[in-house]
Amino acid sequence: MTIPEKMQAVQLEKPGGSLIVRTVDIPQVRDGEVLIKMAASPVNPSDLQRIKSVSDENELRTYIPGIEGSGKVIAAGKGFLPHLWLGKRVACSAVHPESGTWAEYMVTSASFCFPLPKSISDEQGSMLLVNPMTALAFFDIISKEKHNAIINSAAAGALGRMIRYIAIKKKILVINVVRNENQVKILHDEGEKYILNSSENDFQNKLHQLSLQINATLALDPVAGSYTGQLLNAIPYGGTVIVYGNLSADTEGPSLRPLVLDNKKLHGFYLGNWMKDNGQIKTMRNLAGVRSLLKNELKITVNQRFPLNLAQFALDTYLNNMTAGKVLLVPTLF
Amino acid sequence: MTIPEKMQAVQLEKPGGSLIVRTVDIPQVRDGEVLIKMAASPVNPSDLQRIKSVSDENELRTYIPGIEGSGKVIAAGKGFLPHLWLGKRVACSAVHPESGTWAEYMVTSASFCFPLPKSISDEQGSMLLVNPMTALAFFDIISKEKHNAIINSAAAGALGRMIRYIAIKKKILVINVVRNENQVKILHDEGEKYILNSSENDFQNKLHQLSLQINATLALDPVAGSYTGQLLNAIPYGGTVIVYGNLSADTEGPSLRPLVLDNKKLHGFYLGNWMKDNGQIKTMRNLAGVRSLLKNELKITVNQRFPLNLAQFALDTYLNNMTAGKVLLVPTLF
Repeated sequence: MTIPEKMQAVQLEKPGGSLIVRTVDIPQVRDGEVLIKMAASPVNPSDLQRIKSVSDENELRTYIPGIEGSGKVIAAGKGFLPHLWLGKRVACSAVHPESGTWAEYMVTSASFCFPLPKSISDEQGSMLLVNPMTALAFFDIISKEKHNAIINSAAAGALGRMIRYIAIKKKILVINVVRNENQVKILHDEGEKYILNSSENDFQNKLHQLSLQINATLALDPVAGSYTGQLLNAIPYGGTVIVYGNLSADTEGPSLRPLVLDNKKLHGFYLGNWMKDNGQIKTMRNLAGVRSLLKNELKITVNQRFPLNLAQFALDTYLNNMTAGKVLLVPTLF
Repeated sequence: MTIPEKMQAVQLEKPGGSLIVRTVDIPQVRDGEVLIKMAASPVNPSDLQRIKSVSDENELRTYIPGIEGSGKVIAAGKGFLPHLWLGKRVACSAVHPESGTWAEYMVTSASFCFPLPKSISDEQGSMLLVNPMTALAFFDIISKEKHNAIINSAAAGALGRMIRYIAIKKKILVINVVRNENQVKILHDEGEKYILNSSENDFQNKLHQLSLQINATLALDPVAGSYTGQLLNAIPYGGTVIVYGNLSADTEGPSLRPLVLDNKKLHGFYLGNWMKDNGQIKTMRNLAGVRSLLKNELKITVNQRFPLNLAQFALDTYLNNMTAGKVLLVPTLF
């Protein structure tokens, strides 16, 4: 396969601005890395978070968004892994800010690639890494900090479902928070014991009582804003809330009084940071864990597919109805 | 000394309401405890915090505020320490919510008392425990979490000064944040190297640059509100902000984005919790540390003294001008 010199890639017009497509150089492959011809890439909540964080001019000029996707490895840098993956279809995660998945080609570390079995399509394969890796990272934290029960917010979503599945295997009790009665019913039918509807009037009180009852000392929070305040108030003395997204789009945080009075903790989580901080060995171990999750994982619903030049529209579509399913960017639709 | 059956004690009229004086039973002394005839007791920022937290009716009925003070031990429960302190003047800290220092008498654990040498007056002795104990607790955390440099907010205050003094002994670098040029000058004359004025326009930027330069991975924050946001943005990747007061009286917290994107942590600190969580041995060890601090500690300025029945006025006076000096409650002025 010949490799062109230029490619189409999504970039930010200006900080806080729209996504546009620019023609840029194909990124260079270094030792331990691979070049991937991208097949598909989803919009994830952490992408929204990451895009909003771009503020300086230098980053703006080089930054290509997209943290996961799938494609074919068409060039390999020095090393065992890069050559093992060469020519293979892989699920992959971005490691360089200047080479994201929302492009025709991406360069990334070979250890952030995962070969796809024939049974998994490019589309399904493009959504394989972030959710299971995030869930497995959460359970590393749960084990390290010795929590026996947790609060799982957005429990009806793809990540929420994965957390529930791993929790059963690890014998961790879970309070599942969903947003409507329909989701309560679905989780009930799936055998969940502790399900709370955050739209109910006495949600805060119920969550507090249940958290004390089963000693749910960790709350996972993709919502942020005032919901974080509800979690901070609900968890027992000394408990921790881990914020890993901002679905509420709130810019202000909650009152910090529970932190001071009840020794509670507020931490953040971003998968890219976790992988960087925990190194390749733990990341590889968790990637191996992903394999076992795949067998049991239900197919993820795809809502719509867009070419790269409609990235901004894709992002808006995802934001307007997150529960409708995933939105994919597919370079070959270009 | 005969012990009466009733005493005057400060209580809360209603949650969020004013402080009033009620006639209540003298509290009972149990094993390991002492009964103290109170001489003086200051208003501390953590008292304000604690008083605001009272919400349920049962707590309201029994709660007597005040976390530190001085007085004479007039009765002792079973045990070595209680009898060692009997008849002595002590600095003391409250352990029971229903027996605070803002009363004519208080019952507390003998291990939360500290005999006063003749050279220290009742008034100075009443302010001995909270600040040094807090500072020493911070350095326990600093050592445990392996920070080499910190941000010291309100660095010109009594606690801020104590933190600076211990930091020199422990070879921890300190960025001192003060609120005006006069305080900058004072700290400069006292030999501090890193001093920033939070009233300056480019404070945020300077704090960020300096934090990165000396790798100040922990920020101590008695202010809360938007200042917490400034600290969260300023500290390096993975850093921690410990909120231990709410001088700003803000009810909303900062944006949690730095937590998610840069793996930063937001913790709370309240001395009462710390003592409870760390047990008597560590508390005793730190109380012993207080002794060595006393020799070097400058006298604390007393702004005004009030009888118990003017507790609300005392609290308002303190709130309106914290830098004017401490406000003391003196039962014998009643």
